[in-house]
Amino acid sequence: MSLIVQKYGGTSVGSVERIQHVADRVIGYRRQGHDVVVVVSAMSGETDRLLGLAREIRPDADGRELDVLLSTGEQVTIALLAMALESKGCPARSFTGAQVHIRTDSAHNKARIQEIDGARVRRDLADGRVVVVAGFQGVDEMGNITTLGRGGSDTTAVALAAALNADECQIFTDVDGVYTTDPRVVPNARRLERITFEEMLEMASLGSKVLQIRAVEFAGKYNVPLRVLSSFEEGGEGTLITLEEGDMEQALISGIAFNQNEAQLTVEGVPDQPGVAHRILGAVADANIEVDMIVQNVGADATTDFTFTVHRNDFDKAMRIVGERARELGAREVKGDPRIVKISIVGVGMRSHAGIASRMFSALAAEGINIRMISTSEIKISVVVDEKYLELGVRALHDAFGLEHAPQEAS
Amino acid sequence: MSLIVQKYGGTSVGSVERIQHVADRVIGYRRQGHDVVVVVSAMSGETDRLLGLAREIRPDADGRELDVLLSTGEQVTIALLAMALESKGCPARSFTGAQVHIRTDSAHNKARIQEIDGARVRRDLADGRVVVVAGFQGVDEMGNITTLGRGGSDTTAVALAAALNADECQIFTDVDGVYTTDPRVVPNARRLERITFEEMLEMASLGSKVLQIRAVEFAGKYNVPLRVLSSFEEGGEGTLITLEEGDMEQALISGIAFNQNEAQLTVEGVPDQPGVAHRILGAVADANIEVDMIVQNVGADATTDFTFTVHRNDFDKAMRIVGERARELGAREVKGDPRIVKISIVGVGMRSHAGIASRMFSALAAEGINIRMISTSEIKISVVVDEKYLELGVRALHDAFGLEHAPQEAS
Repeated sequence: MSLIVQKYGGTSVGSVERIQHVADRVIGYRRQGHDVVVVVSAMSGETDRLLGLAREIRPDADGRELDVLLSTGEQVTIALLAMALESKGCPARSFTGAQVHIRTDSAHNKARIQEIDGARVRRDLADGRVVVVAGFQGVDEMGNITTLGRGGSDTTAVALAAALNADECQIFTDVDGVYTTDPRVVPNARRLERITFEEMLEMASLGSKVLQIRAVEFAGKYNVPLRVLSSFEEGGEGTLITLEEGDMEQALISGIAFNQNEAQLTVEGVPDQPGVAHRILGAVADANIEVDMIVQNVGADATTDFTFTVHRNDFDKAMRIVGERARELGAREVKGDPRIVKISIVGVGMRSHAGIASRMFSALAAEGINIRMISTSEIKISVVVDEKYLELGVRALHDAFGLEHAPQEAS
Repeated sequence: MSLIVQKYGGTSVGSVERIQHVADRVIGYRRQGHDVVVVVSAMSGETDRLLGLAREIRPDADGRELDVLLSTGEQVTIALLAMALESKGCPARSFTGAQVHIRTDSAHNKARIQEIDGARVRRDLADGRVVVVAGFQGVDEMGNITTLGRGGSDTTAVALAAALNADECQIFTDVDGVYTTDPRVVPNARRLERITFEEMLEMASLGSKVLQIRAVEFAGKYNVPLRVLSSFEEGGEGTLITLEEGDMEQALISGIAFNQNEAQLTVEGVPDQPGVAHRILGAVADANIEVDMIVQNVGADATTDFTFTVHRNDFDKAMRIVGERARELGAREVKGDPRIVKISIVGVGMRSHAGIASRMFSALAAEGINIRMISTSEIKISVVVDEKYLELGVRALHDAFGLEHAPQEAS
């Protein structure tokens, strides 16, 4: 007998009928002898409905009260799912984030989980119940309700799996696994059977949208095997995300991620002094804006150019903040472009193989795509290009690395 | 400066526009120098929407999970009202029942408040905030969410007022006060300026629907001055409910209450032995059915007839339970009638005046209305009559006691 934590997203619980269907699936796993903890999101559309009410009252609604409001979405789902399970003869009990002590920091609307007390959940599992937990929400030290930000239910599931030492954390979603790239862009994209946490982290952070990045971080940190599955198709294997193992399929590149929601800011002619990067990015971070890529080039004189990317929604705010700082620092100019995209190739295989970067750049050059920024890590290479080259670039790279075919035996 | 606890019901917060209006009123009281705690219900229609979802899953939905579901209704309202106050420049903070430790017993769907810890509320009041609390809900010793049953928001408001030692508890509703009887039945019914807790208790318990009975009990027990006001008309005085004072207006009868939702059960030919009443009513009480009137007549032989009334919704269930018990006890027969109503005259003045009962019975007799049951207390006399006589009976009594005119000086 094993312990499984399952997470069903908003679409999977989008109607009473679908909630009944989720209850049937959960009961199926129980019949196989598993203990099951279920984490659910708000019914699809509910979060937007609540946000709509809030925006009617104050267009810039945020902070503490927004969390009090939005957290009701998941609370409705946990109650309905627990009722559905009970009505089918399966003992169940629902819990809000506060009730299972999902302790977070106090950063409303984007809180981070700090601690979970699994005792209450374990007690109910031991009593033979399915435990249904509200995703996306927690409670801070003062007892204020917090939310983890959109997609936070994945993080709740993984954090619970880690706290309970679960055997597997299963994320049910509207896709049947992780693909080599977005099938809407590349029709012959292929579902991966396995992928490492590190690769998934790069895929997720770069916009694969299947899993929330923090969930993968958590899973990697606590080594929780994570499986992405379709909530609509039965019997699929999905994609298993685990630690790298010797006998894993050894592709050079596992997948191609891209991010359409980036915007680029460049501060030109910054005096090249210690602490400059911190003074620019510190102000951005203080405004709770996340920075993605950072590239710095030394200029011809005693100044430097400093470029970074942020989420496109934060572009205007970031331009304002950076504009102020640039004046203080005596920088020459701040330029911005919200019409860029980032494309990345990801794979643990590239660690041991030279020439991956040049194969990538030549494939893009062959299509006449100009590269604006480059950034690399151990297992990924990212380029920023004009928005209009997104599809062309992704397809060219998918072909160049032969991703439509399953990899051969480990080389 | 005084501390006021205000309660706004579902209709008063039924839309974003109305919530804005409530915020304006609250701010008006603040400008007069009062500290304000606001208790709100779910937006009108929301509780029914949630119940509808629950019933789609299980038609007999009740218990723990229903409370988890329904409590989201008030949680939405507190967040929206706090946002509305803040957007108008008034510092505010919302709290669920659990967050302000409204400790109840564990009787889901009809829990009773046992204790309130006012510390958190006092702290925020001291910081200059309006405190917005979700009505209708609490939390039991184990941390499970409970609800107080429909209308429970009134009780929350009064209990909070008592815990905070507030100067007045104001219940905003869709009527502008307590009337001598239902104006839909008697068009010249008159608004009362004052009424005692005891009278209000009898009026409420007998179906006046303006206030929840437990709220009045609480208010009386802790001597919290309670005022019923219209949430739509500004400037009204409403009706103040207080302890009896020497100089209060001394009507013989303050009002006429009636209850259309009663059903009558009679167990005929019960062996006249000690413990019989307990064995019948104990089983009914164990099924959480509330019993209202109880009348027992000794029969001709060694048996007795035992009659009581319950809420009409509980009639079928009560008939089943009482049927079983009656067989065990060797009773002759169980008869039931769900088509009865109860009419009561209420007034502290009747304590010191004889002849009230006979004036009541003669007024009914003059209209040819047959009385099926009679029950009396210190300050009320109730009769059960056929449903069809409801309007006729109430009007006859309103006339007989001259209730359309304000009372003269104390006699």
